[in-house]
Amino acid sequence: MDAYSLPKNDANFSELTPLTFIHRAALAYGNHTSVVYENIKFTWKQTYERCLRLAAWLQSFGIRKNDVVSILAPNVPALYESHFGVPMAGAVLNTINTRLDAAAIAGILHHSGAKILFVDHQLISLATDALSTLTSRPEVVLIDDISSTIRCASFGLQYEQVLASANPVAYPPVPVTNEWDAIALNYTSGTTSEPKGVVYSHRGAYLSTMTLLLQWGVGLQPVYLWSLPMFHCNGWTFTWGMAARGGTNVCLRSPSARDMYQAISRYGVTHMCGAPVLFNVLLDPTECRQLTSPVHMMTGGAPPPAALLESIESVGFRITHSYGLTEATGPALVCEWQQAWNLVPSAEKARLMARQGVGALTLSDVDVKDEQTMISVPRDGVTQGEICLRGSSIMKGYFKNKKDTDAAFKNGWFLTGDVGVMHPDGYIEIKDRSKDVIISGGENISSVEVEAALYRHPMVLEAAVVAMPHPHWGETPCAFIALKKEYASNEAGIEEGDIVSYCRDKLSHYMVPRKVVFLEELPKTSTGKIQKFILRDVAKGMQKNNPKRDANSSRRAEREINDINRQPEARVEHVLALSRL
Amino acid sequence: MDAYSLPKNDANFSELTPLTFIHRAALAYGNHTSVVYENIKFTWKQTYERCLRLAAWLQSFGIRKNDVVSILAPNVPALYESHFGVPMAGAVLNTINTRLDAAAIAGILHHSGAKILFVDHQLISLATDALSTLTSRPEVVLIDDISSTIRCASFGLQYEQVLASANPVAYPPVPVTNEWDAIALNYTSGTTSEPKGVVYSHRGAYLSTMTLLLQWGVGLQPVYLWSLPMFHCNGWTFTWGMAARGGTNVCLRSPSARDMYQAISRYGVTHMCGAPVLFNVLLDPTECRQLTSPVHMMTGGAPPPAALLESIESVGFRITHSYGLTEATGPALVCEWQQAWNLVPSAEKARLMARQGVGALTLSDVDVKDEQTMISVPRDGVTQGEICLRGSSIMKGYFKNKKDTDAAFKNGWFLTGDVGVMHPDGYIEIKDRSKDVIISGGENISSVEVEAALYRHPMVLEAAVVAMPHPHWGETPCAFIALKKEYASNEAGIEEGDIVSYCRDKLSHYMVPRKVVFLEELPKTSTGKIQKFILRDVAKGMQKNNPKRDANSSRRAEREINDINRQPEARVEHVLALSRL
Repeated sequence: MDAYSLPKNDANFSELTPLTFIHRAALAYGNHTSVVYENIKFTWKQTYERCLRLAAWLQSFGIRKNDVVSILAPNVPALYESHFGVPMAGAVLNTINTRLDAAAIAGILHHSGAKILFVDHQLISLATDALSTLTSRPEVVLIDDISSTIRCASFGLQYEQVLASANPVAYPPVPVTNEWDAIALNYTSGTTSEPKGVVYSHRGAYLSTMTLLLQWGVGLQPVYLWSLPMFHCNGWTFTWGMAARGGTNVCLRSPSARDMYQAISRYGVTHMCGAPVLFNVLLDPTECRQLTSPVHMMTGGAPPPAALLESIESVGFRITHSYGLTEATGPALVCEWQQAWNLVPSAEKARLMARQGVGALTLSDVDVKDEQTMISVPRDGVTQGEICLRGSSIMKGYFKNKKDTDAAFKNGWFLTGDVGVMHPDGYIEIKDRSKDVIISGGENISSVEVEAALYRHPMVLEAAVVAMPHPHWGETPCAFIALKKEYASNEAGIEEGDIVSYCRDKLSHYMVPRKVVFLEELPKTSTGKIQKFILRDVAKGMQKNNPKRDANSSRRAEREINDINRQPEARVEHVLALSRL
Repeated sequence: MDAYSLPKNDANFSELTPLTFIHRAALAYGNHTSVVYENIKFTWKQTYERCLRLAAWLQSFGIRKNDVVSILAPNVPALYESHFGVPMAGAVLNTINTRLDAAAIAGILHHSGAKILFVDHQLISLATDALSTLTSRPEVVLIDDISSTIRCASFGLQYEQVLASANPVAYPPVPVTNEWDAIALNYTSGTTSEPKGVVYSHRGAYLSTMTLLLQWGVGLQPVYLWSLPMFHCNGWTFTWGMAARGGTNVCLRSPSARDMYQAISRYGVTHMCGAPVLFNVLLDPTECRQLTSPVHMMTGGAPPPAALLESIESVGFRITHSYGLTEATGPALVCEWQQAWNLVPSAEKARLMARQGVGALTLSDVDVKDEQTMISVPRDGVTQGEICLRGSSIMKGYFKNKKDTDAAFKNGWFLTGDVGVMHPDGYIEIKDRSKDVIISGGENISSVEVEAALYRHPMVLEAAVVAMPHPHWGETPCAFIALKKEYASNEAGIEEGDIVSYCRDKLSHYMVPRKVVFLEELPKTSTGKIQKFILRDVAKGMQKNNPKRDANSSRRAEREINDINRQPEARVEHVLALSRL
């Protein structure tokens, strides 16, 4: 026998699971505030107790290992508790995006085979619509308004009642017997007929949580504002992470600028997350105020324009830029701040920080590779390739979807579908989604690069660039722009030709948009990401630019966007647009 | 088939190992300083390259999976590099305490079956003595003085030469194919005839490293001063941890107060570790200086007296108190700072902080249990029991030592052999090593508690309390004391009776020492822990107290301590004393 074959035992080998975090939180931070929401405040001891009750009730109801339990709710305490209570029952948590329409929700409930659906009291009619189309329906539990004493009587099962009726002694938590077992199921897109349900393991969730806390430098007992929906990759793992650090979860039903600034000052918020679109909300001139102590914000989901980074930092937010995908259990690259950067001018700082960064510690490797040969591109900051990841935070695969699972992995790497470059300093910069690359006369144009130029224009609030068909070049860039409020009216006098000239100064000629369309607002997903697929459809009917500001193009575009949003196929595409963080 | 059985693949499952940290460090922090030592400075790219070369040379020399490679060196760059280079060759790293004598070193080399021994150039004669007693000897590689151009010619193999001769292309790193495989072998004690070689897995080392970085709040690119020997539980995992965070390792051959303060100001040290005895070194009145920016220090290995914590914090050190053992891959309990403690008076703060704390995040559970029944003691801060741990940072077991391995685990828990209490707030406080408890008339007396009282005496520098035989009570406490320099001469006029009266005011009567012996210095291990086994031997010959300061007892005790240190058995006990951190 090999002298090293010292076997595993229960003392020296524990299955990795974020469930250990809340057990420990109840012991170590028992009297510290775990959750605040309107007039409600819980301690970690109470939150643990409520999660144990949830797990007990689920088991008493008949929920078994690997059953799916869905929840449709904004950032209320019940959604937080489900992150522990559901897997404690051995079940798999499926959080559903609350802005999906009934058909999309029905599709998820059908595909996941959910046994139970928890529904927030404000989303009952949406859920009812979704359920009405299903032949096999999950049991529904109403999440009543915990901050009110009035109880909604229309449903048989109500959340607070089921917690009260539970018997945690008779039904203790189901032990995690294999860390590879599923803990969560998060739906992303439906490019094919089959929806993509990303499955996380307990191990992956544990490791991602630990890594993100470490890389973001989250200290003990942070105060975390839930500006990011928890249904979004389980709140980029910070649902579990707050238990690990004994933090306080500040829950908000719908985060407006006013509510967020109020919560920041009332509770002393230290950390929050959100896509760059949240910066615009927080920079709203009527609500924006200088922070008295810095708030750390992790951003991701779209490359933040350098100019916007500069503005939000000047208010007192400390931005950490990360890049990730649902398939990578949230952030996979983190733009770690290097000490040497303290010495560079602030515009250059913002440029460095706008890159997606280096691999999270959980990943065993990250690379940019030629997607055909799978050979690494040179580290020159120029040669484009596909961003590839490997490591224990990558999803197990897509639920009941072998075809897409197989396609996602190649030669031992997970293919992100994102195009990027590797800089000489080892930092990766995303250039585009594969499908967002514009191919003009054989040249690849990064839409992100053109957008970055547009964002530097002082009047531009939002910009998106997509391919427009061109008889000679095949495709050329078409820009959609929303101006800042103060320049939005025609009197500001900015015209299409001004934007084009501006771009000519900043970009190679072939990259300059041939068409610029002014919109009041760009179409966005429920998580604030610009819906390029809609703009691509609109651009199909566009022609090359007219030097004047073209009110007709704008009106036509707005009309078409509305039309597309009403089409049933848009719902599928809408879900698609959520596939990245 | 269960729809969840999505299999592992190379993209979504990586074996956990700290070796990924240095691969990533070379990519992400390539040009940042990794190691400084005297006039030598390396970047992470260079350190990675040197580790690859070390691994390549080891393989070319014939080192295979699971072979043991030993190293006997102070905190020089080669010792740091061995933490990556040796496991990259598939081998197991065995770092040897440099203060052991030749016989103890020979015992370790024999038991481990080391194939290669790297020896620092200043320790050649010690190594030669050790090797001379062995029939089967490892190949020896001299670690020459890297900071000097003069090379020692007496050995065939020299470290810098073997690195230069290596071929990393022909011998790339051996992949870790199972995270449960051994990475390190650390010898602790020899209570029995068989030495105890604690085996760490790659998984345990990875998880411990991540957890300790997180719980200590180590940010990006720390500057870490190697005051703690790296041979000590692999530097409490911070050898691997500095690669994970892209830190700078400030290596010191032998850390004096002067050298440490010099390094702190020269390199801007942010973090360091050490047993509480290091506080006394740093508080040396001739060298001590107020820090201009705070240095975070993790301490452990012995419960730090509250008064000493207060003094060291006043200089500008920020202390994190942890408790651990070699068997738990370093720190296992961390006294996490709770926000509510900011409001209590500073003496109370120090008392709270002197407790050992809550379980590290890697542990799935910690508890204090009755050692017979294995039932948890009440959380009352009073009832004593054995501190028990479980989780993935606990050792695989003892190398080639089934008996002690089996005895270390009980009912799925690792038994620490330490006696403690569980406070109502979930914090554990150590009361004693099991063998250090004094049993007087059926009452258990915690030697730590008596020592804490003695440390509060303004003239006391060091104190240790052990059992002294007593015809009536069985055992009674005997105190050994070293006074602060300024009170050390007899003129200070403090007498045995003064100390006893002082203790009567602070302690229950049965806990008051019946005998107080004044020593110039208490006997200590190479890692600064007081050697109680020596004092116990001395106390066996002691009688009850004499109210005057008893110069005869002191002289006799000093003589006996010297005698014991010369006895061959002392060497075994000496190793024993290293078993705790």
